[in-house]
This record gives sequence, C-alpha cells and structure tokens, in this order.
Amino acid sequence: MTETKGEKILDKKFSRRQMLKMTGLGAAGVAIGATGLGGVIKTFGMDFLDDDSTVTNKVTFYGKHQSGIATDVQKNIYFASLIVLVKSKQELQELFKMWTPLAVRLMNGEMIGDSMTNGMIPPKDTGEAKGLDAANLSITFGIGPSLFEKKEFGLTSKKPAQLKDLPHFPKDQLDDTYTGGDICIQACADDPQVAFHAVRNLVRAASGKVSLKWSQAGFNSVPVVNNKKQTPRNLFAFKDGTENPITSSQKDMNEVVWVQSGESKNWMTDGSYLVARRIQMHLETWDRTALKEQENTFGRHRDSGAPIGKKDEFEAMDIDRKDDKGNFVVPETSHAFLAKSVDARILRRAFSYSSGIMDSTGSYDAGLLFLSFQKNPDQFTKIQNSLGRIDKLNEYITHRGSAVFACFPGIQKGSYIGEALFKTL
Amino acid sequence: MTETKGEKILDKKFSRRQMLKMTGLGAAGVAIGATGLGGVIKTFGMDFLDDDSTVTNKVTFYGKHQSGIATDVQKNIYFASLIVLVKSKQELQELFKMWTPLAVRLMNGEMIGDSMTNGMIPPKDTGEAKGLDAANLSITFGIGPSLFEKKEFGLTSKKPAQLKDLPHFPKDQLDDTYTGGDICIQACADDPQVAFHAVRNLVRAASGKVSLKWSQAGFNSVPVVNNKKQTPRNLFAFKDGTENPITSSQKDMNEVVWVQSGESKNWMTDGSYLVARRIQMHLETWDRTALKEQENTFGRHRDSGAPIGKKDEFEAMDIDRKDDKGNFVVPETSHAFLAKSVDARILRRAFSYSSGIMDSTGSYDAGLLFLSFQKNPDQFTKIQNSLGRIDKLNEYITHRGSAVFACFPGIQKGSYIGEALFKTL
Repeated sequence: MTETKGEKILDKKFSRRQMLKMTGLGAAGVAIGATGLGGVIKTFGMDFLDDDSTVTNKVTFYGKHQSGIATDVQKNIYFASLIVLVKSKQELQELFKMWTPLAVRLMNGEMIGDSMTNGMIPPKDTGEAKGLDAANLSITFGIGPSLFEKKEFGLTSKKPAQLKDLPHFPKDQLDDTYTGGDICIQACADDPQVAFHAVRNLVRAASGKVSLKWSQAGFNSVPVVNNKKQTPRNLFAFKDGTENPITSSQKDMNEVVWVQSGESKNWMTDGSYLVARRIQMHLETWDRTALKEQENTFGRHRDSGAPIGKKDEFEAMDIDRKDDKGNFVVPETSHAFLAKSVDARILRRAFSYSSGIMDSTGSYDAGLLFLSFQKNPDQFTKIQNSLGRIDKLNEYITHRGSAVFACFPGIQKGSYIGEALFKTL
Repeated sequence: MTETKGEKILDKKFSRRQMLKMTGLGAAGVAIGATGLGGVIKTFGMDFLDDDSTVTNKVTFYGKHQSGIATDVQKNIYFASLIVLVKSKQELQELFKMWTPLAVRLMNGEMIGDSMTNGMIPPKDTGEAKGLDAANLSITFGIGPSLFEKKEFGLTSKKPAQLKDLPHFPKDQLDDTYTGGDICIQACADDPQVAFHAVRNLVRAASGKVSLKWSQAGFNSVPVVNNKKQTPRNLFAFKDGTENPITSSQKDMNEVVWVQSGESKNWMTDGSYLVARRIQMHLETWDRTALKEQENTFGRHRDSGAPIGKKDEFEAMDIDRKDDKGNFVVPETSHAFLAKSVDARILRRAFSYSSGIMDSTGSYDAGLLFLSFQKNPDQFTKIQNSLGRIDKLNEYITHRGSAVFACFPGIQKGSYIGEALFKTL
C-alpha cells in the first residue's frame, strides 16, 4: 500500500479496532467468543473480513480451495512448522477462528491491527511490512498426523487414512530439526518481508498456544518472457516443475491435487495433502560434474529443459524411446525416467534456499524446499520409492527434513479455517 | 534477459569462448597469463569486457568507485567472506585479474561462459540465473586485515592504518562462524538467485584458491511511493538509514564514504571501508514491548520514522531538545541519541535476514546483516562506543558476527580489481 493508501486504511482500521475491542478480540488478540465468528459478522457487518478487491497484487483468500496451491508460484516463501501447546479441542478450534480474519487482513496487505496504540501496549502488528503492498501473499494452513495423536483433541476418528508420516526412503538422512509438526503455515509472497511478516504475526497472535518447530525461508526466481512466466530453475540450473499439472485446468487439478468427495475424510474435500522435504543440494560436487552427466542425471537437457534427445521443454518425456543400439535415450537411472515410470503425478511447488554455509564442511547450506501438493501423499511416496536407491540424483542431494500436512479446503465467507473438521464433533 | 536476448548473447558468447580458449582462460577458467589483462584487451579488442549498455536493470561495473556502495540498495544480498588459500603475491593478483571480466559479465546479466559445452566437462556457468536479467546486480570486493598478516604475500607495508579488527564492544557475543575473512564479495541484486549465482560462480572459478569462511543471505523490502523509494524498515519495523549521507551528493560521499587522496594508503583512494556485523534481533522480546518503549529505544517514532516529538522522518534529530520539565525529549539512552551524540557519520547499507530458528531456543534466527561504508572504520567504532553499554537497543539485539574490509576503488577499463595494491610492489 502507498502512504496515501496506508492513511486511508489506518482510518478504517481505527474503527475496526473499536469494533474488535467490543468483541474481545482487541485485548487478547485471540478471543473470538464461543458464539463463533458468524455472530461477529452478523453483528458488525461483513466488511472487515472481505477480500479487498481494490488492493493491487492481491491473491483472493476466500474460495473453494485455499490459496498458495493453485496460485501462481511467488518469489518468496516463509514456511513454518508449529507444535500445538493448547490442550483442548475448543482452544484448537479458537486458534483457527482467530487466525481467519488475520489471514484475510494480511492477504489484503493490511496491518492486522491499528498501529496508533496509546503506546503503553505492544503494537498489534509487528509493523515491518508497513508501506509494502500485498505482494501476492498467499497463506496456506495444514495439520500434521501428530495432531491427531494428541488424544486431548478427540480428533482420532477424524484422521484421514492418507495422513500419515512418510515411510523411510533409502538415502534419507532426516534431522529432527526439520521434520514433522502439528500445524504448518505456508506464506508465499513476491516479497520476503511480507512472507515473513505473515508467519511472524500469526504465530505471535497465537503466543502460548503454538511454538515454532522448524521454519525455512526460500525463493523462486521466475524468468518472464513476453510477460509469460517460465518454469523456474533450481540451484542445479534445471527447470523444476515442467511436468506439473496445469493449475488452471480443473480436470488436471481434480485428478491430481484436490481431494474429491468420498476420496478422503469429508472435511478434506476440496483440500489437498502437502509433502515438504528439505533437500540439501551438494553444489560443489554438482559443479564438478560434466554437463552430459548432469543431463543424464535429470534425464533432461539443462538449457532447454527438454527431455534428452528432444528440443522443447514441453515435449513428451516418452521414456520408452531407444537409440539404434537399443539403449534407452533417457537413462533408466535418471530422475525423470524413474519419476515417469510410475503412474503418479504431483503438483510441485518448490523453492530454493541458501542459508549460509555448513559449519562442519564449509560447503553451502543450500538446496530445495521441495513442496508438493497431491490428493494423497501416496502419489509422492510412489514416485519417491521409484527413485529409490538407483536415482542418479541421490549422489548430489541429501534429504534432511520431511513433513506431511493435510491442507484444509478453502474458506467461505462467514466460515473459518478448518471449520469442517470441527463442526461435526 | 529474455529467451530471445539469451539466444543473442549465446551467439556472442560462442565467439567469446573461442577467444578465451586462445588466452588460456577457457580451460582452467582462471589462467589469465602473467602478461596481464591489458595484453589480452589489446590483442582481442575491448568489447568482451564492456559494460553492456543495452541490458535492462543494469548497474555499471566500471567507474571511479566500486558498485554496491553508492548504488541504490537492492532487494537481496548474498554476502560471502573468504579465506585465501594461495601462497604467493602473484597468485593473489591473478585471482583478482581472473575475477574482473567475470564480474563484468555477471553484472551484464550474462553467463560467465558458453553453456553449449561438448558435455564432457562441467559447464562454465552454474546456470541457475539463465533467463533472469541483470537484476541490478552489484559486486563489491574487499580485503580484510588478516590478508596482510599472511607474510607470503609481502603486503605488510601496504596495510592501511585504518584496516584493523574492530575492538571488542560491550555486549559483543561474537561467534567465529560469522567473523573475519581475508576477502569479501558483496553481491546485491533485485533477485536472490542472481545474487547467489554471482558469489557461487566467482568462488567456483577460484576453486582451490579460496574457501568460504562465512556467508549470509539477506533482503531489503523497499516501499515505493509515487515511484520514489522510501527508507526500508528493519525487522523491528523501524526505518533503517534515515540519517544516511545522500548517495547522489558528491560532497556527502567524499566527506563520509570515499577515501580521499592522502587519507589512507594510496591504493585505497576512492575506495571505502566496509564494516559487517551480523546482529541477531530478539523478535519475541521486542514483540512483547510497548510501542512507547520501542520508540524510546530507537529515539524515533515507529510509523513515521520521525525523531521523537516530530512529525517527519527527515526532520533534524536535534538531541538537545528538552521538555518543559527539563528532560530530554529524545531519551539519552536511545539508539539515535547516542549515535547522534558523537561527531561521526557512516553510510548504512543493511539487509534483514530470517534463517529459520535457533535450535536451542526455538526462537527466530533473524536479524540484521548490518553493513556500513565509511572512509575510516573509526567512524563506526566511535558510534558503536557511544552506544556502548547504555544503548537501550542492547536489550533486544546480540552482535554475533563481525568483520572489516578495505573495499578497493573502482575499476577502469583495461585495469583489474585491486590493481593499485599490486602494481607498485
């Protein structure tokens, strides 16, 4: 928002603050009463929870699906995995109710509270995003299998069969520091400060109710040609996401990504499962590898992204092709061959990271925050099992972190995040 | 660069590659002969070392001063501190000669070598920036005091009196992991992948000659109002850099930043000294602090950035003001009061970072990569000593890393980085 716009919003916010105080949200920042959000809306009008259609670079909050999945991939991510500290179902439910209007505001590029406090209390918004626009912020909430194992929430019967920790894969070297979590918040934006600000303010508003287990910032540099976004390259310089389902195709997305009615627990219909893997990439080793070997490792040409032996990125992979000596054109141990040889598709939505160096070795602590969405984590597991021990890429990467989350369906105006999970309890 | 543009550059590059092979630069990527770069230029023409004025979002490499100092602050930084492994003055000199044309190419948004290799060798460029434009990349080279202590280089007599490790400051909790270094490369760009790519390729081209000591990625989110860049906010939401000298004012810059003839060793004339501090910011503590206390800590208003009691960010700080009870309006223990109470100015060019969480505490590993340029590090030391033990900000921050570097003057066409240091040996 511009300063001018900021002033306008500040004016609006002052009246919002009065409103919030009356509902008790102002004081604790969390206490939308047991009457539920619907009541608040009816009493005070819907406007403070609306997507603001006048905002530039704005992703819509409300809809059939959560944002940050089919949303065009943004430049930055701040991904947080949280541990839940509250001890009752009601407190958990209130947590998501409390987060809902905050997420709307954040995605509108607004401060989450009036910054003109009397000075005697901490500002409601941490403030570092003031003056920045919405930056296409998307916020995606999910819950992990460990949440269902906490008996105090009484959610056991609601646990989808699909939501379970991933199996151990060959070559996994998982570090508990980057593994698991009860809740995830994926904040993606075209500005790193806007993405971080979103997570920071959501976690802060839930102070004492959740704690950070792990987090990872990442980036995605998307080349633009004639105003058309291209497939971004990972830190090995290969295009990442070529085989993705078309996010604008309802058919593709319904087949691969969105849980359809009857396919999982009902509360997950129109939701999606998220697999997160923190994958260290051994850049120094890769950089000493011949181009042909790099291409045989991925099964694609580096420059064009085309399958080996082809010209265009989007030509079919066609792994059955053989050369005149009868050898596979795309090597059988290549990443693409193995991934393609199982009947499973996923929506990759990965981000690179470069977090300084590894103390112990002096090499880069850099790699990929691999994120994929699918209607069933088994789609990922199938592919990962196919890669198994023989994927040539294993020589150059190490999986250090892993988590799986059930990402709720979208939120309708007047509802709140995860309502379907709680409402029939 | 767009794909179309990429193709054009690729064509140019092929002929460049032939040229480079003839000089021996092609094979090792490093071996510009002892005849010096001047010879290469005369033989093969100047064009391959030119700033490419046709490139969009381009910072100029050549000039009186290095880029990345007076350059408008970019959105991203990848800062690397290196240890030198070579053992002779000549090898050190060749390192900087080798880096010079690579830096020109990187800042032109070019690949540093032909990507159409025969496949049997590693590609010259790591490739992850292909398709991205120059992104206002600046690259700034500096050398640390430790380089002069390595007797094998015979540089002892060239060491400027100004270039010495910073004194220990009260409250410092420095970690060797983020401290010191023989050489720094500061790569700033409006794209994180472009910044990282620059450092990665420069370090890789010097494989076996340098190793990474520490590095830090960071970001700066600059609000834009009416096409005018505003002062960015740090993660405490306060504007950072309000008191900076005007980078477009030669007078300001000559007084504060650029070493003038006779002020230091001759080889540093038109150069500048860089102080780097990795400052952890305790966000959770800060976020529990009342706004008034936050403002008394900085000595400024959070929203406007104005000195306490004033309205506009750029109004004079005027620390002598007292209220009608005779108390200082800007608290005597505030960061701004203490910084202003000494006669010293610096050019701050800081970036925020958010690198996951601290394993031990679960709190954010986030803060400020403080970078300041000044004609003498004593300017920084004066200010930091004034902050001393009483700066209220000390309660909320911890200095974890520290380094100081002498950043060479700018490079003239036909010369190379640091030539003045080496040429009179």
